[in-house]
Amino acid sequence: MQALRSIEVDSESVIRAITPALDPTRHKGQAGNIAVIGGCREYTGAPYFAAISALKIGADLSHVFCTKNAAPVIKSYSPELIVHPVLEESYSVGEENKRSITSKVLAEVDKWMERFNCLVVGPGLGRDPFLLDCVSELVRHARQSNIPIVIDGDGLFLVTNNLDLVRGYPLAVLTPNVNEYKRLVQKVLSSEVNDVDAPKQLLSLAKKIGGVTILRKGNSDLVSDGDTVKSVSIYGSPRRCGGQGDILSGSVAVFLSWARQRMLAADSNSNLSCKNPTVLGCVAGSAILRKAASLAFLKKKRSTVTGDIIECLGQSLEDISPAS
Amino acid sequence: MQALRSIEVDSESVIRAITPALDPTRHKGQAGNIAVIGGCREYTGAPYFAAISALKIGADLSHVFCTKNAAPVIKSYSPELIVHPVLEESYSVGEENKRSITSKVLAEVDKWMERFNCLVVGPGLGRDPFLLDCVSELVRHARQSNIPIVIDGDGLFLVTNNLDLVRGYPLAVLTPNVNEYKRLVQKVLSSEVNDVDAPKQLLSLAKKIGGVTILRKGNSDLVSDGDTVKSVSIYGSPRRCGGQGDILSGSVAVFLSWARQRMLAADSNSNLSCKNPTVLGCVAGSAILRKAASLAFLKKKRSTVTGDIIECLGQSLEDISPAS
Repeated sequence: MQALRSIEVDSESVIRAITPALDPTRHKGQAGNIAVIGGCREYTGAPYFAAISALKIGADLSHVFCTKNAAPVIKSYSPELIVHPVLEESYSVGEENKRSITSKVLAEVDKWMERFNCLVVGPGLGRDPFLLDCVSELVRHARQSNIPIVIDGDGLFLVTNNLDLVRGYPLAVLTPNVNEYKRLVQKVLSSEVNDVDAPKQLLSLAKKIGGVTILRKGNSDLVSDGDTVKSVSIYGSPRRCGGQGDILSGSVAVFLSWARQRMLAADSNSNLSCKNPTVLGCVAGSAILRKAASLAFLKKKRSTVTGDIIECLGQSLEDISPAS
Repeated sequence: MQALRSIEVDSESVIRAITPALDPTRHKGQAGNIAVIGGCREYTGAPYFAAISALKIGADLSHVFCTKNAAPVIKSYSPELIVHPVLEESYSVGEENKRSITSKVLAEVDKWMERFNCLVVGPGLGRDPFLLDCVSELVRHARQSNIPIVIDGDGLFLVTNNLDLVRGYPLAVLTPNVNEYKRLVQKVLSSEVNDVDAPKQLLSLAKKIGGVTILRKGNSDLVSDGDTVKSVSIYGSPRRCGGQGDILSGSVAVFLSWARQRMLAADSNSNLSCKNPTVLGCVAGSAILRKAASLAFLKKKRSTVTGDIIECLGQSLEDISPAS
């Protein structure tokens, strides 16, 4: 506990430092253009939660790249999102067409790639082998273009089984929950999760994957890039309804983009102890979700669902970093 | 009337006794993971009402297993649900494929089975013979895995014609309305419904099916497991809009799961006169629906619809058992 207290970060200061001023001379896209890769026959809620959360935090544009049959459903949740029905699952693809379809999917996403400030890979992605092969290629393309990538859910399943996809990529963020973290530790460190010295283990894990950033979700959230470890324990809710991880991935994507802009700006002379935009993005995303979840819980108590928390994202950000 | 008064249970105390404390160290799934089997070409509202009610009572995850064409519609009602398009109806299946399709459906559901705390079988299931054959197999699998099963609507049609599916299974709950109860009495007791001594008849009915729990819905709700009879008469609404039975089945599923956890816990020293989790789940589900229906009626009067009642589930639970 002593260790955790000493690494607790002032996450509200981080949010204030990286959230850009609203300036009427800026134009559409400059506050963030995010893409979520996910949504398949089985799952449609998760990519929606991630993409709409990005908008509610303040991104200008939010895209979803999903399978053809998931697209109409995700579109129906909200007209705010741009939903591309491009991915394919094995059951709808003959062996002889796999190559040409992969090329087509890559071409479709590549058309947009340079405009994205961050990808979120994994919410509701499913585990279809052909689809995951396609998404592996997408991750390689994003990496070549130096686009940050937040990886969650089934994206973590993919990456844990193929660590080279992210190894040594400083703009990769992994956001594992309890079970996903356990698998990652077993795979990378060949050991079990150590809760006694959690920060130290997280640090070695991030270092071992070549300095990717890992946000370990839990009662306290822990963030490390292999160089530093931060914890975020403020706010939070005891409600554990499914979908909160999707809010987090979409929020981290936006804050990470903002932190990166801020760090690249010449006039940046912030007093932040950490300058790594992926770590800052994780800290800010964690804090905003925890605050929104606590506000939603105050209103809805046990009946709180993920949509209620999303409705509180705006108020949470406004309380911490007022727009004017 | 004398008889009914003496068996009226303090249902609010039951709710307080079985509702788990909200504890920040718990993780996703521990407050309940429910699956609804239902939803076909004709019906999509009923499985949605049952599944969303489970979340609003406080479950962490809520799944629906329905036919392929029902899935996009149910998904579009809410991104909070996980909807699996796996069931098939006769019109879309050739005779020669029935066996292989049944195996595929079972395999799809079995992948998830062990994670579910309770199944709800029947809301909007329809009566397609091939689909019902498949669902019979699902019920047998759930029973082998010792998963509680709440059976309503067309699930009761299935079970009334094949009582061996539930006979002697103490984790089965049947929730018949007036007509469904009449058919059940005719089939099992070879007699007509006796309203003069309703508790006694319900007791023999439950005993005759080997100790399943039956919630007989009515002006007063009656619950029996063949051993004891309880009545719930508090609150309630004169509005009889369709869909309230679906709220009840989803609510019973969650409370039953909580009661079972509580009864299995070593430190359980509750003063409850009845220790059967299926009876406790029925009593709690009945009371919460009756309270939510009364709150909704106060606001909406004759125009009250099922969605309005669902919106009052959270407040109803909070009034009886505050989250903090």
